[in-house]
Amino acid sequence: MKKILITAGRTTEKIDAVRGITNFATGRLGAILARKIHHRSEVETIFFVTSEVYLIKQLADLPKVKTYLIKTSQDLKETCERILKMDAIDLIIPTMAVSDFFVREIVSTNSFLSWITQEQHRFTNDYLSNQNLLNEWLNQLKDNQYQTQKISSDQEPILFLTKAPKLITLFHEWSPKSYFVGFKLIADGTGDEIDRQWAAEVMVKNHYDLLVVNDWYKIKESQHQALILDNDENVYQVQTKEELAEKVISLIDQQNKGSKKVLCNHQKN
Amino acid sequence: MKKILITAGRTTEKIDAVRGITNFATGRLGAILARKIHHRSEVETIFFVTSEVYLIKQLADLPKVKTYLIKTSQDLKETCERILKMDAIDLIIPTMAVSDFFVREIVSTNSFLSWITQEQHRFTNDYLSNQNLLNEWLNQLKDNQYQTQKISSDQEPILFLTKAPKLITLFHEWSPKSYFVGFKLIADGTGDEIDRQWAAEVMVKNHYDLLVVNDWYKIKESQHQALILDNDENVYQVQTKEELAEKVISLIDQQNKGSKKVLCNHQKN
Repeated sequence: MKKILITAGRTTEKIDAVRGITNFATGRLGAILARKIHHRSEVETIFFVTSEVYLIKQLADLPKVKTYLIKTSQDLKETCERILKMDAIDLIIPTMAVSDFFVREIVSTNSFLSWITQEQHRFTNDYLSNQNLLNEWLNQLKDNQYQTQKISSDQEPILFLTKAPKLITLFHEWSPKSYFVGFKLIADGTGDEIDRQWAAEVMVKNHYDLLVVNDWYKIKESQHQALILDNDENVYQVQTKEELAEKVISLIDQQNKGSKKVLCNHQKN
Repeated sequence: MKKILITAGRTTEKIDAVRGITNFATGRLGAILARKIHHRSEVETIFFVTSEVYLIKQLADLPKVKTYLIKTSQDLKETCERILKMDAIDLIIPTMAVSDFFVREIVSTNSFLSWITQEQHRFTNDYLSNQNLLNEWLNQLKDNQYQTQKISSDQEPILFLTKAPKLITLFHEWSPKSYFVGFKLIADGTGDEIDRQWAAEVMVKNHYDLLVVNDWYKIKESQHQALILDNDENVYQVQTKEELAEKVISLIDQQNKGSKKVLCNHQKN
């Protein structure tokens, strides 16, 4: 009996008490995958972690789906850590688009200009020394005071973002034996031709068994052009979310993880 | 026969092709209001503008509700302009939380430090002259190149935000005769005691006939503590979204706009 973790949707990172940074992922692909896998006899449980209330309602008729509603990438981390450490998960399909950045600090343009004006005599033509001045200033600001308040709409805020840790690395650490489907979103219109070298490196670095490369400009309501790469350097192109979901499942069907089948081979109905 | 415009949910402003700034409004209050007003015989149409797909599905059984799905505050503006200019709207209830800020410019921390390093000799102890240098720099950056691309997750971006125009002012300009319910969200824990002077000024400035003051820290799943102020300086306190919706409707029932009733008086069922 197989246990599967699917994440779907997007995370939101707090700017202040009432505002956040998010992305435009809808979570539909994750829901389609859950529905397509659900009827299989070898599937025991699908853990479905999402930001989207409407997806939870949409999947309410599937008894083997356990849903979890999350908002921030911290929520996502804690929820998936519990699931992956508690249970032996056979297959991870993390379709959710996770924030690459956290808000390090928010300052008003006024405070920023006051800092420049006060410290102007300390700036030099040495990049690194200026970098130190910036960090010194940002570090001495009190912990983001806006975490519990609302920035006044009279201000013109400046947001200093910082890199968020890659949760995908943790997923693999917590559950190294799971079959792992990776997702990369690009948005530069190069989605037709993939850099094989780059894709292979992404797969090795992240321990992916399959890699789905999505191009934002080729995802519309009904259309979802994507490339799928497997570990034998085969590349498959699909045109819709339905087709993408089916191809991912059929490729998983063909493969083994360690000595075990990830999913059983199923005939097409 | 009465026509009503309700907005519900939140707007999202683009950071780059795949990311945006948003807020945490759910739109539930707007949906409750639509449902409570819908059964009345004098209601002809409820124009319901929202960011939330689940609300559109939730209201699908109400034949007098016309729904519009929007994302950005520009969408909201265009949609409401069409509605308010096309039809004589009797009542506007704009519960949607609209972005206070747009993204003026995104720069990497690297570019920012290079600018500081290059221009350091031009900074002085004159705040205004430094402000000019900053604006000069931001203006000469090409129009936000990331509008159509994705910021690399290897960067640490800095976002310069700028004030968005207040759409509420336009709503009144487009439809000055509508009865107008205003909403103010505060998030500083002062929601119990309201500054009457401030509230009166907000009402006059924005041409509100009623004002709902929400305190973010008093809005939880089931609880929604809020204050409602009318034009006679009465203040009413409510504890839940249901109670808030009912009180707003009963206050509208009691009032006239110009020589006309906004809604008819209805007996409690």
